[in-house]
Amino acid sequence: MQDTPGALLSILRDGQARTRAELAQLTGLARSTIAQRIDALLDQRWIVPLEESTSSGGRPATAFAFNRRARIVAAADLGVTHARVALTDLDGASLAERSADLSISLGPEAVLGWLLETLHELLAETGHTSADLCGIGVGLPGPVEHASGLAVNPPLMPGWDGFPVPEWLAARAGAPVLVDNDVNIMALGEHRAAEHLLFVKVGTGIGCGVISGGRLHRGAQGAAGDIGHIRLPSADHVMCRCGNLGCLEAVAGGGALAAALGVAGTREVVGLVRAGSTQAIQLVRQSGRDIGLVLASIVNFFNPALIVMGGDLAEAGEHLLAGVREVIYARSLPLATQRLEIRASELGDQAGVTGAAVMVIEHVLAPAAVNLTVRT
Amino acid sequence: MQDTPGALLSILRDGQARTRAELAQLTGLARSTIAQRIDALLDQRWIVPLEESTSSGGRPATAFAFNRRARIVAAADLGVTHARVALTDLDGASLAERSADLSISLGPEAVLGWLLETLHELLAETGHTSADLCGIGVGLPGPVEHASGLAVNPPLMPGWDGFPVPEWLAARAGAPVLVDNDVNIMALGEHRAAEHLLFVKVGTGIGCGVISGGRLHRGAQGAAGDIGHIRLPSADHVMCRCGNLGCLEAVAGGGALAAALGVAGTREVVGLVRAGSTQAIQLVRQSGRDIGLVLASIVNFFNPALIVMGGDLAEAGEHLLAGVREVIYARSLPLATQRLEIRASELGDQAGVTGAAVMVIEHVLAPAAVNLTVRT
Repeated sequence: MQDTPGALLSILRDGQARTRAELAQLTGLARSTIAQRIDALLDQRWIVPLEESTSSGGRPATAFAFNRRARIVAAADLGVTHARVALTDLDGASLAERSADLSISLGPEAVLGWLLETLHELLAETGHTSADLCGIGVGLPGPVEHASGLAVNPPLMPGWDGFPVPEWLAARAGAPVLVDNDVNIMALGEHRAAEHLLFVKVGTGIGCGVISGGRLHRGAQGAAGDIGHIRLPSADHVMCRCGNLGCLEAVAGGGALAAALGVAGTREVVGLVRAGSTQAIQLVRQSGRDIGLVLASIVNFFNPALIVMGGDLAEAGEHLLAGVREVIYARSLPLATQRLEIRASELGDQAGVTGAAVMVIEHVLAPAAVNLTVRT
Repeated sequence: MQDTPGALLSILRDGQARTRAELAQLTGLARSTIAQRIDALLDQRWIVPLEESTSSGGRPATAFAFNRRARIVAAADLGVTHARVALTDLDGASLAERSADLSISLGPEAVLGWLLETLHELLAETGHTSADLCGIGVGLPGPVEHASGLAVNPPLMPGWDGFPVPEWLAARAGAPVLVDNDVNIMALGEHRAAEHLLFVKVGTGIGCGVISGGRLHRGAQGAAGDIGHIRLPSADHVMCRCGNLGCLEAVAGGGALAAALGVAGTREVVGLVRAGSTQAIQLVRQSGRDIGLVLASIVNFFNPALIVMGGDLAEAGEHLLAGVREVIYARSLPLATQRLEIRASELGDQAGVTGAAVMVIEHVLAPAAVNLTVRT
């Protein structure tokens, strides 16, 4: 309930400029309190003053507007085989961006070293320094304990188990670091589309980001959405790389499809689908059905308004989506499916960096956080 | 961000009395604003004045305390075969209570008529009138669209589909009515125990209430938690009363167990278990395993900190719980189970009315709601 400078900032984030009098009226705060907080926000450049004439024709009152260039955000999407880094403003609009083929299995120091080097290049390119950075958001392709930022037994990330990503990166970049599962971050990137949504990423592996009531649901250990290792009854004979039998990922993930088709990876599977290979199309469609079987139960349990399919395999046309829809609409309860939308991600390969930026912005601009920063 | 009289009330709900000066300091609100809002809250009896001497030895300043007797809450838990009504104060403490064997299949007018009659008896018993009621919370044993309060295709509730419960009851009781699924309400009753929890009710049917980040997750159509109709691969030959094949409820619900044992209902199954029937114990244990199989996938997806088992069958000792634990700990991911607690409900048959009261209190005392009530 306590008011903070951050509370004023939350009001101004809608883009409209307001005078001290208007802010006092909106909040019920004392004029002296408003004045102190405006000064603190001006000091730190969170807001900028605009001269506006009053309707009464008197002395112009100063209005204050949110300054979306007050800080720079760094957003990194580190996938199993490729990586992307972007700089954004406080609205999440991209200022500069770079991507590269980079294997996560090179280990944390090599991959984070690339991230750091690229970040410095992008800062220089856009005329900024580390001092302008308010935070770095990082998505990793495996389970992450969000509070500590540690990857925990990540099956596709040899060498990363327990590596202190936030400390390592913060010490070198000079800005706070937030880390989460790549799919949680992609879900955040789509979170304005619905109150309750699932973002399902089908790449080499399979994972899911969960938005409940407009907020990311991470679960008790940050492990929520790990649907790739749900056991599929029809696959009890297949060994998963996690060491268990019958995981969804072991039969329906891009890695499994690549192995079945005798090609190197998920991108080659997508290439075959685009080239019209009947075998590849059938496999992707069946992958959709297997994923749909797991999601059909989750739809009954979670009742989302929207399921967004992303990742390389979702970009292989409508085949994956068709399989998913076929099974969910046949198996889930009518009440849960009557208005359920299932579609491909419109953000495509931008979903990760978009969401990583949202994660940092929501954290940095949370009323309590701003209070800590600007109290003088 | 806007402050309201309800915001003051939220501060005072911790039970501590505070002076106008203390409230001004805590909120940053102008003294004149505090005075206006205190007056509005006093007018409506939401708070009571207490005379307190100041530490400086000067004129005693008046402190204000939340008045948990300002309003009376009615809470109803309507199950498939029995019903319970309670009156509580604004802390959810029970003032009077009544329960009865009552079949939901008698239809809405008969069941709600009983509720209304019982409510009036309890009001008279405790020396209150309808004017003291701030709201009525009702739990129903089937899917409810929370926004409208309508039961939607409820499989165990013939005659209730689309019946306007809130309007019917509000018109006759003279107080606003909130309706939800009985398991959502039971989950609310336990919601102080963990940030992320599932309340699984195993009675005649099987359902689940979902708390994400301390808030009830109802889903897009209020259908979240309907795990009783998730398809179990091993039960594909069993017809469920919902018309589908292989639903969890059709093999593991109390109704299915009663049929297998040739007894009338869930309570008779519990009686056989308590009498030491090996067959009944084995069936309840297997029911726990079947439920555990569905929950194992949900644990990977949702990563709860706590699963609370309730309903009649959960009261049959440790057998149901043992089956659930056996399968979840074997099948779910280590990260999701390492600190997962699975236990029986400590509220027992009070879970429903406790949660129905919480639902009303949180709604009535939400800052915005109080603002609407007391603005003068």
